Amino acid sequence: MSTAAAASPIRVLVWGENVHEQVEPHVAAIYPQGMHTTIAEAIAEKLGDRVVVTTTTLAELEHGLTEEVLADTDVLVWWGHAAHGDVADEVVEPVHQHMLSGLGLIVLHSGHWSKIFGKLMGTTCTLRWRSEQDRERVWTVNPTHPIARGVPNPIIIDAQEMYGEFFDIPAPDELIFISSFTGREVFRSGCTFRRGHGKIFFSPGDQDYPVYYHNDVRKVIANGVEWVVRDRVAREIPVLLRYETDDFFSGHGYTGPIESHDEVPADAPVA
Amino acid sequence: MSTAAAASPIRVLVWGENVHEQVEPHVAAIYPQGMHTTIAEAIAEKLGDRVVVTTTTLAELEHGLTEEVLADTDVLVWWGHAAHGDVADEVVEPVHQHMLSGLGLIVLHSGHWSKIFGKLMGTTCTLRWRSEQDRERVWTVNPTHPIARGVPNPIIIDAQEMYGEFFDIPAPDELIFISSFTGREVFRSGCTFRRGHGKIFFSPGDQDYPVYYHNDVRKVIANGVEWVVRDRVAREIPVLLRYETDDFFSGHGYTGPIESHDEVPADAPVA
Amino acid sequence: MSTAAAASPIRVLVWGENVHEQVEPHVAAIYPQGMHTTIAEAIAEKLGDRVVVTTTTLAELEHGLTEEVLADTDVLVWWGHAAHGDVADEVVEPVHQHMLSGLGLIVLHSGHWSKIFGKLMGTTCTLRWRSEQDRERVWTVNPTHPIARGVPNPIIIDAQEMYGEFFDIPAPDELIFISSFTGREVFRSGCTFRRGHGKIFFSPGDQDYPVYYHNDVRKVIANGVEWVVRDRVAREIPVLLRYETDDFFSGHGYTGPIESHDEVPADAPVA
Amino acid sequence: MSTAAAASPIRVLVWGENVHEQVEPHVAAIYPQGMHTTIAEAIAEKLGDRVVVTTTTLAELEHGLTEEVLADTDVLVWWGHAAHGDVADEVVEPVHQHMLSGLGLIVLHSGHWSKIFGKLMGTTCTLRWRSEQDRERVWTVNPTHPIARGVPNPIIIDAQEMYGEFFDIPAPDELIFISSFTGREVFRSGCTFRRGHGKIFFSPGDQDYPVYYHNDVRKVIANGVEWVVRDRVAREIPVLLRYETDDFFSGHGYTGPIESHDEVPADAPVA
Repeated sequence: MSTAAAASPIRVLVWGENVHEQVEPHVAAIYPQGMHTTIAEAIAEKLGDRVVVTTTTLAELEHGLTEEVLADTDVLVWWGHAAHGDVADEVVEPVHQHMLSGLGLIVLHSGHWSKIFGKLMGTTCTLRWRSEQDRERVWTVNPTHPIARGVPNPIIIDAQEMYGEFFDIPAPDELIFISSFTGREVFRSGCTFRRGHGKIFFSPGDQDYPVYYHNDVRKVIANGVEWVVRDRVAREIPVLLRYETDDFFSGHGYTGPIESHDEVPADAPVA
Repeated sequence: MSTAAAASPIRVLVWGENVHEQVEPHVAAIYPQGMHTTIAEAIAEKLGDRVVVTTTTLAELEHGLTEEVLADTDVLVWWGHAAHGDVADEVVEPVHQHMLSGLGLIVLHSGHWSKIFGKLMGTTCTLRWRSEQDRERVWTVNPTHPIARGVPNPIIIDAQEMYGEFFDIPAPDELIFISSFTGREVFRSGCTFRRGHGKIFFSPGDQDYPVYYHNDVRKVIANGVEWVVRDRVAREIPVLLRYETDDFFSGHGYTGPIESHDEVPADAPVA
Repeated sequence: MSTAAAASPIRVLVWGENVHEQVEPHVAAIYPQGMHTTIAEAIAEKLGDRVVVTTTTLAELEHGLTEEVLADTDVLVWWGHAAHGDVADEVVEPVHQHMLSGLGLIVLHSGHWSKIFGKLMGTTCTLRWRSEQDRERVWTVNPTHPIARGVPNPIIIDAQEMYGEFFDIPAPDELIFISSFTGREVFRSGCTFRRGHGKIFFSPGDQDYPVYYHNDVRKVIANGVEWVVRDRVAREIPVLLRYETDDFFSGHGYTGPIESHDEVPADAPVA
Repeated sequence: MSTAAAASPIRVLVWGENVHEQVEPHVAAIYPQGMHTTIAEAIAEKLGDRVVVTTTTLAELEHGLTEEVLADTDVLVWWGHAAHGDVADEVVEPVHQHMLSGLGLIVLHSGHWSKIFGKLMGTTCTLRWRSEQDRERVWTVNPTHPIARGVPNPIIIDAQEMYGEFFDIPAPDELIFISSFTGREVFRSGCTFRRGHGKIFFSPGDQDYPVYYHNDVRKVIANGVEWVVRDRVAREIPVLLRYETDDFFSGHGYTGPIESHDEVPADAPVA
C-alpha cells in the first residue's frame, strides 16, 4: 500500500484567483500567465515526476473545484487576494470536507483571508499589513522540519508586502518560519496545522512582487506539497460512531441523542 | 484597571438547551430545574461572590443570547446535546464574534457538537460514543494548570456516558485531562484553546447521569470559569489594519487589496 | 487553602551574578547596586504587597541558594551572563529539584545559558548574538496570555543586544513574545514551559543597556512572577510509585525493576 | 543531496541493556537472543533494504557507543530497564551531543528512565507503574501522523506492564498515542520531541511480555525509525555565533561575554 502510494505521483491542483493579473497591469507583467501558472511550474520544477500539477481559477465553473476534481486531487494549493468573497460557499463546503478527509492544503500568504482558511481556523485570520516594498527575511525556527529543508536561513526576499503580528490564527501545531520586515514587524510566516484527517501548510508568498520566481520560496512550497500529502489512500472524514463495550472496530452509525435510538434527527451529520 | 477587574465579580451565563429535561423523564428527575440551573448553582457554590451567575435556554428569544446579554457576559458556559441544529446561525455568529473579542467560553461535554464549538474548531468534532453506564476516571496530565487545582487525580465518576478517541478537534493548546472508561476507551476530556482575544475550555460532563452534582466536576467547571475570563476589560475583535513604516500604533482601516486603496470592497471584514 | 495562598505574599528571590557590575564600569554606572537590585525593585514596584522580594548573588555561600532559602522561595528570578560556569553543580541540582517540585523560575535573557536553564531544556540553548546597540521591538503573539497584560504591542527597547534565531530550545509550551532587531533578526523572546510541578518563564532583558529600568520590561517580569507561582502549597517532586489495580490513591514506593521486588537498587530514584 | 540520502539505507543501531535476559529466566525464554535482537529483527523485517540494522549492549566497551559508532549511526533505538545507573555518564554525554546534532533517537517504554532520556527531557520522567498482566489498548489521537500509519486503532496488547499518568515529561511536541490499561490508567504512550537538530520518538513496548513480537508494535517502531531520521546529511550541533549587522551567513565564533571580546572563557561551549 505505502509502496503503491510512493510510486504514484502526487496530484497537485493550484487554485488561483486570477483577478489581479487581469485587473492590474503591473501584476500581469510579472505573471503573464497568472500566478497559479508560475506556482504550478515551480512545484513541477522542484518535484519532477513525483508530481502531476494542474491549475484552475475562480472564473471556472464551480471555481474548478467540482467533486470529481477534488476526489482526484491530493494537494490543493490556494492563492487568493482580491476576491475572497467571490468564492461561493457552496464550493468552500466540499473543499472543507475533502480537506478534513485527507486532501492536503497549502494556503499561500494572502490566502490567509480565504473563506476556506477562515473556516478551518475558526478565527478572523487578520494581521497587520503594509505594501511599501519591505525586504523580508524568513527565519527558520524549526530546523528539523522537512518543510525547512534545502533553503538558507534566513531566506531573503528583496521586495515584499509586509504582514505583521498579531496574526489571528490558532497557535500553529508547528511553527517553522518567522519573518521580519524592513519596518521590523514580525510574522509567523510558516505554520502547519493538522485538522481531521488532513494537513495544512500556511506559507510565505505574495502577489505584487515577483516572489513566486524566488528559488527558495519555490523550494518551500514544494517541500510543503510533500509534507501535506497524506499517507493514507482512502479519503474519509471523521464520523461519529457508537461502539459496544469491548468491540473497538465495529462502530454503528449514530442515530441520535434521544433515548429511543431509532429516529434519525434532522441534524445528524452527513460525514 | 486590573484591580478594578479583580474587584468586579465575573459575570457568568450558563446556557442550557433544556430539551432533555423536558422530553425525558429520567433526566427531568435528576435535573428538575434543568441542567443549566444545577451547573449555575455549582459555579456559584464554588466561587461565591467572585461571580454573578445567570442562566438562559434555547427556548428564549434569540436563545437568550442577545447583543446586550453577550456584551454583559464575561464567561459563557455552553451545554447542549439534542438540539444543536435548532440553534439559529444568526445567534451563533454574534456568539462567535464575542468569543473572539474576549468572551470566555466553556463547552461542556456533549457541547462538543454545538455549532459554536464546531465553528471555532473548524473540524467535525466527532468522537466515539456509548451510553451504557461506564465508569469514568479523569486523569490529570498537566498538574501545574490552574484548571486542575483542588481535585483528586484521578477524578472518579461512577456513571457516565463513554466518549472516546479519535476526538476530531485540533490538538489542544493545553491538554489538562485524559479520561478512561470501563470499556478502556480514552478521551482528551479537558482541553484549552486560545482563539483571537478569547479563551475556551472544553470540559467533562454529561446529561444522563447526575454528573453535575459531582463535587469534583463542579470544581473543575469553576476552575474553568476563572481561567477563561479575560484580563482585558475592553472587548475587541482582531482587525486587519494597515501600518506605515515605523508607526506601530496608528493602524488605518483596511480599504481593500486593490491598488487604488480607497474603495471599500463588499467583503471587507466587519470586525 | 487557596484563600490562604492568595493572602500570603509571593516570596520572590532575585539571583544575580553580580560580576559585570564589578568588572565593567559602564555596567556599574547603569546598575550601581547590581542588576539584581534593580530587578527586585521593579518587581516590588509593580506588585506592591503581593510580593516580598529579596536578592542574592553568586558570591554568597552556596550562591545564596541553600536548602532553607529554596524552601522559603516561591519564585526564583535568574540573571547571569559572564560566569555561568562558576555556578556550582552542587547548587544547580537542588535548584533543579525545587523547580520540578513547584518553585517558579524566571530566566532573564542572557540566563539562556545558565546551567539551570540548560538542564531544564536539555538542549544547547545557543542562539545568534550581536552587541551593537540594536533597537528591539517585542511583539505580542499571544494576546490572551496574562504575561502580555498591560504592555504595548510592540514594546520598544531603544538600545539592546541582539539575540536571534535559531534559539536552540524545545518548542515552548506557549510562545508569548517574538522580538525583532534593527538588523532584522527575530527571536522568540517570551516563552513559557511547564516542567514537573513547576513553571518557567523565559523573558526579555539584558545587561549592557539600562533595560531593567524600562517600564514595560519591568511590567513583563512582574507579570511573569504572578504567572510562574504555583497554586499548590506543598512542594513535591513527581515520584515513581507502584499502584495496585483499582487503587488509584495509595502508591507504593518503587522497589526496583527486578522481579524479586524487595531489593532497592543503587540507582533507585530519591524523588 | 536529498536523493543521495533517499538512496542510502538508514543505519539503525539498537541498544539493549541485555541484563534482564541474563538474570531472569522467563525473560530469556521470551527473548533468547536478547530484546535488542528481536527489536532489530522487527525493524529489518518492516523496512527491508531501507535500513541496515545493528545491535550493541551495555556490556560492550563504552557500551558499544564509541564516537565512530555514533558518527555512523542515523537512528539509535534505546531499550533499558534494570541498569540505567550503569550507563556511564561519559557515554551518555556524546550520545546527547550526537542526538542534538541530528542522530535520531527512539526510546522504548522503560527507557523512560534512561539517563539519555532524562537529560533530554530535563524532568524526572517518573510515572505510575504496575506489573500484573494488564491488557493495553494503544489509541491513535493523531491520525495524520506517519508514525500512526498502518496500525489498527486501537492496537491491542494482551499482556503488558501498566504505565500510568502523571508521566513527568514536557508536553510532547506531538502526541500520537494514548494507552489505556485494564485498571483504567491512561498513559501518553507515543510522543515526539524535536531537540536541537535531532528528533526523538518515545514509544510503547516492554520486557516482561512478548511485546516485541507484536506485529503492530513492530510496525510502530519501524514507522518511528523512518520519522526520526534526519533529512540533513551533515551532523552539526547548534552553536552560539556572533553576527554582524546585515551579514546573516558568516557567524563568528563566540569569544565570551566580557567586552574585550578576545578571551575565550573556560566555560565557552564546545558545541
